[in-house]
Amino acid sequence: MDFKTEMKERVSYIDEVIKRYLPKEEGFEKTLLSAMNYSILAGGKRIRPMLMLETYRLFGGEQVNEIAPFLAAMEMIHTYSLVHDDLPAMDDDDYRRGRLTTHKVYGEAMGILAGDALLNYSFEVAAQAFSGTMDISRVAKAFTVLTRKPGIGGMIGGQAVDVENCDRPMDKDKLDFIYLLKTGALIEGSMMIGAILAGAKDAKVEEIEEAGRKIGLAFQIQDDVLDVIGDEQVIGKPINSDEKNHKTTYVTLFGLEEAKKKVEILSLDALKVLEKFPKRNKFLEELVRYLIFRDK
Amino acid sequence: MDFKTEMKERVSYIDEVIKRYLPKEEGFEKTLLSAMNYSILAGGKRIRPMLMLETYRLFGGEQVNEIAPFLAAMEMIHTYSLVHDDLPAMDDDDYRRGRLTTHKVYGEAMGILAGDALLNYSFEVAAQAFSGTMDISRVAKAFTVLTRKPGIGGMIGGQAVDVENCDRPMDKDKLDFIYLLKTGALIEGSMMIGAILAGAKDAKVEEIEEAGRKIGLAFQIQDDVLDVIGDEQVIGKPINSDEKNHKTTYVTLFGLEEAKKKVEILSLDALKVLEKFPKRNKFLEELVRYLIFRDK
Repeated sequence: MDFKTEMKERVSYIDEVIKRYLPKEEGFEKTLLSAMNYSILAGGKRIRPMLMLETYRLFGGEQVNEIAPFLAAMEMIHTYSLVHDDLPAMDDDDYRRGRLTTHKVYGEAMGILAGDALLNYSFEVAAQAFSGTMDISRVAKAFTVLTRKPGIGGMIGGQAVDVENCDRPMDKDKLDFIYLLKTGALIEGSMMIGAILAGAKDAKVEEIEEAGRKIGLAFQIQDDVLDVIGDEQVIGKPINSDEKNHKTTYVTLFGLEEAKKKVEILSLDALKVLEKFPKRNKFLEELVRYLIFRDK
Repeated sequence: MDFKTEMKERVSYIDEVIKRYLPKEEGFEKTLLSAMNYSILAGGKRIRPMLMLETYRLFGGEQVNEIAPFLAAMEMIHTYSLVHDDLPAMDDDDYRRGRLTTHKVYGEAMGILAGDALLNYSFEVAAQAFSGTMDISRVAKAFTVLTRKPGIGGMIGGQAVDVENCDRPMDKDKLDFIYLLKTGALIEGSMMIGAILAGAKDAKVEEIEEAGRKIGLAFQIQDDVLDVIGDEQVIGKPINSDEKNHKTTYVTLFGLEEAKKKVEILSLDALKVLEKFPKRNKFLEELVRYLIFRDK
């Protein structure tokens, strides 16, 4: 089976898992539940749960159903961050993935509440793993990562710095901070949780964290590269929009060639980590290459 | 020591616990961390952690320091809900407890993010209990309640229905739903977590949940009563503002005398539950009476 077909199969599986945990749209609070489901069913590549699942397999995990609550939870956290990002007080976006954003359909108050509810519900869903058959201290460890990576030392921390600095020049330290936290943290967390739930030792989990960190950073720098070289039709936004917006990127700081080289080095480093574990996961390696060297 | 002095002591202790878990205001993300701390240090009666602590004592809990992460976490959840409630798209409030609301000081985007961060951080803080000395399955059970009660079947569910119906007439079922979920759920959850962490059996925890439910409902109905009979200076808002706003309350539905009677019955029922456990907690009983029969 080729990579694209395999990937499609994974996405369907993850979509099915997510649907299993969605709330039934009924009761007085039906509008809230519909807004949550609308947000999460807008589609998406399901990259974070996919990395979690494949890292779990890399470490020999076979009880895929046991980790299902964490797969769904991670995508809910990612989704809540998009719903709140799109709000008028933030990016003020009317469309995402070709559909109206949550607050455009349900109103701003419900957009705020749906995001809150998705974040809270993600932990509620993951907590179901405590009553599964997995070792409880393993679940507790994974849970701790799930609470930490989207938080102030992770995604929200990066998001807050991005919001404050989006129209100001930045140096490399601050840019790295935003890239590593805003995008990198959930990628690291997804891979770490996969490793932890498969029973990987702490030292291995740390190596996976480091690989995730490099993948997240490379992913973001590739975004900067695509902004300059991408074909407008392929990436779906005006080329060079970053430069027009006076946005600081890896390309504005170091030039196109240096930025490309950085993506290359980071991704090779990340792959080296993944390749050295006894049980190779070829799909995971291809997935990492696909995420980093994508053309949109 | 009289009740008011004892209560003040409890509030100081809880404030000290909360401060122990607050993030240091440093780094690129300093503004976000300041906004979180500003919100939680605005003061307040710390009712939810206090109910948690006293229910823990009711069941013989003595390792007060061990439950500290949950005390702080519950107040962070309550605080995030206030920060988001005050946003322009919600109640649009400029002041709370005599201070400017979070979004008035830090801007709307940071107000949204500070609320998100407080919710996420509450779970991060509570997860620290997994590495404490308490029995891990007990912590997991308490954690599960902490994820459930603020969620779609609890606080946010009630909040969403309130937002949708605040200017429409409602029947008793819908009003009860809002009261029980929006306010009751965190009170139930606080008391349940106290009981669970002290090692109470499931059947006892269910009785405590039922007592919390009655306390929460009585607390809200008393709010309706105070709106009609309260002295404007004492409760700090124009008397009878509910009627002016065409808001459905227990008083508009059943009249003042019936509403008062309902508060009386609910609180006596709740106290009956609390009084029947072998180790009485007189302070908890007084606290419940104080919360319900308050004059503001």
